[in-house]
Amino acid sequence: MIVDDLIRHPAAWLAAGGEAGAVVSSRIRLARNLRSAAFPGWAGEEECEKIWQKLRELLQAAPTLAGSYAIGMDELELLDRQLLFERRLISREHAGKGRGSGLVGTPDERLAVMVNEEDHLRMQVIRPGLDLREAWSVMNAMDDELGSRVDYAFSPRLGYLTACPSNVGTGLRASVMLHLPGLVLMNEMDPVIKGVTKIGMAVRGLWGEGTEAVGNMFQVSNQISLGEKEEEIVHSLEQIVLEIVEHEKNARARLRDRKEAILRDHVGRSRGILENAHILTSKEALDLLSGLRLGLEMSILKCVDRRLLDELLVLTQPAHLQKREGRKLKPRHRDLARAQRVRQVLAEAGVKPVE
Amino acid sequence: MIVDDLIRHPAAWLAAGGEAGAVVSSRIRLARNLRSAAFPGWAGEEECEKIWQKLRELLQAAPTLAGSYAIGMDELELLDRQLLFERRLISREHAGKGRGSGLVGTPDERLAVMVNEEDHLRMQVIRPGLDLREAWSVMNAMDDELGSRVDYAFSPRLGYLTACPSNVGTGLRASVMLHLPGLVLMNEMDPVIKGVTKIGMAVRGLWGEGTEAVGNMFQVSNQISLGEKEEEIVHSLEQIVLEIVEHEKNARARLRDRKEAILRDHVGRSRGILENAHILTSKEALDLLSGLRLGLEMSILKCVDRRLLDELLVLTQPAHLQKREGRKLKPRHRDLARAQRVRQVLAEAGVKPVE
Repeated sequence: MIVDDLIRHPAAWLAAGGEAGAVVSSRIRLARNLRSAAFPGWAGEEECEKIWQKLRELLQAAPTLAGSYAIGMDELELLDRQLLFERRLISREHAGKGRGSGLVGTPDERLAVMVNEEDHLRMQVIRPGLDLREAWSVMNAMDDELGSRVDYAFSPRLGYLTACPSNVGTGLRASVMLHLPGLVLMNEMDPVIKGVTKIGMAVRGLWGEGTEAVGNMFQVSNQISLGEKEEEIVHSLEQIVLEIVEHEKNARARLRDRKEAILRDHVGRSRGILENAHILTSKEALDLLSGLRLGLEMSILKCVDRRLLDELLVLTQPAHLQKREGRKLKPRHRDLARAQRVRQVLAEAGVKPVE
Repeated sequence: MIVDDLIRHPAAWLAAGGEAGAVVSSRIRLARNLRSAAFPGWAGEEECEKIWQKLRELLQAAPTLAGSYAIGMDELELLDRQLLFERRLISREHAGKGRGSGLVGTPDERLAVMVNEEDHLRMQVIRPGLDLREAWSVMNAMDDELGSRVDYAFSPRLGYLTACPSNVGTGLRASVMLHLPGLVLMNEMDPVIKGVTKIGMAVRGLWGEGTEAVGNMFQVSNQISLGEKEEEIVHSLEQIVLEIVEHEKNARARLRDRKEAILRDHVGRSRGILENAHILTSKEALDLLSGLRLGLEMSILKCVDRRLLDELLVLTQPAHLQKREGRKLKPRHRDLARAQRVRQVLAEAGVKPVE
């Protein structure tokens, strides 16, 4: 039921309304653990279940999480868990869990807390566009509310303790999703990735750790959570993102000036294939949607309803597609259903070249 | 001037009016040499020039060639010679020739005689669709007319003598151009090529010897011209072509029955890219036009004017493109002009999916 309600509106990180440009969304994630209980990887199912039941109650009582839903992973079909992953509400790892772990979140999807992923609490605030400070302030409030009610595992020397050493300290991971087709088309993405990595940030794909950068989508996030204050982490990331956005703007300007035909060809082919293909893999769909998005942002294409197109980023993903069709589909049949859905949405969205 | 007149109408082999299906055109070519003169490869420029002047007069006086034009290769710019090659009126080799060689042909392009290519006379009759017998009968008449006026190099034991041993005997090469996307999409083209080769026929690409089979176009022709009567050669080829056409029909039927999505995807993408690309190489254009043609023939697509689309086969070729633009273009600029031309013609032709 919860999942059925969620998919009635676009995922929180897509709700920017089409004016976001290179920055798709901002995300703050905080890892916390209870001092009194074994970490999820060491606790048995029964202990996990007790922790989940206790934490869901605490979380739902927190003012920032007013009106939130809570659901155990064991209450969800695999397809629904995959769908939550596609909406970036849970991790791929969490989607594979069962009894003893769960999710508490607000219906608008901006706040989501995984319970018993690799830490007892993985709290997430996600917002469209570049909005890290606001996301951090919401997160900070939620953390304070919970911190006053439970005893967090904390070391005066190290800070907050977590299952993985990379999260020890603040437990904070701030990340921004960027759409960078200009840099990719100008073959300038590699130096950007190298530069960002060199100053201690990580660059990942659309669905986080271990995922390839499809659709020219890149997630930039802090690597280190120890030894820096939260505000500093958020501030540094924001600065780097603004720099990358500047690079992307430059790349797009040079693309238009010096490689206009390549740009128009890329945009035109993306549109032509999306509107006419009958078989589309999710990777190809994301890559082509990137071209369409670039065309709209560079005024090569126009459309009546940009949000419909943005939503396709998620709606073309396997679980969303199957949910919509109301049944499980083999990959081959998903590719057919995906192409059909894309053709239909593009017709509705009224994509046209700007004369 | 001659070239400017020719390009006002579609190439002879394209004039089928869109109902030809798998068979694009039929061609008969006869190689003949004069007994009294050295073969072109051994004669000097002066001797070649004398032969050309003598033969152009003789040819233009022949009743079958009434109203024909005659032009020396040295009177033509390289671009015009390339254009004649693209229209299949001369060979690639002949397009590289200068003084001492020429072309005599009828304005409808159905008859064309290369003088001093590798033989003194290379006579060609080309007709749209499967029409080998009629082509042969026209050729036979032309050959008789000329044979009564000049003394052909002929050996009672071997037959007509030619520069290359593969043409000795009848000097005849009969060939049929086939469009076989069904067999290619069903991965069944290889056995067909093997079978055809085994019985002594050759399979080549769109522009003859040494050209790759782009656009799913294949030329099937006799390999051997010695030891068989002309009518037998023509008859055997016709039989083989009818068989291949049957295979192609079967392949298309199975494509529709068992691989409909692949078929629709192929046709849809071909159309989508042609209508929206801004950079198109000639090879890609031919490949995509093949998909469009298949879509029209299988009633997946419809259009107002099929002939416009057929003509693109030739109009997208480098020399035609440059002739139309009125200037020489670098390959990169040709790819832009080609894409623009294709978009324009497709809009004019009114291509739409059949609902």
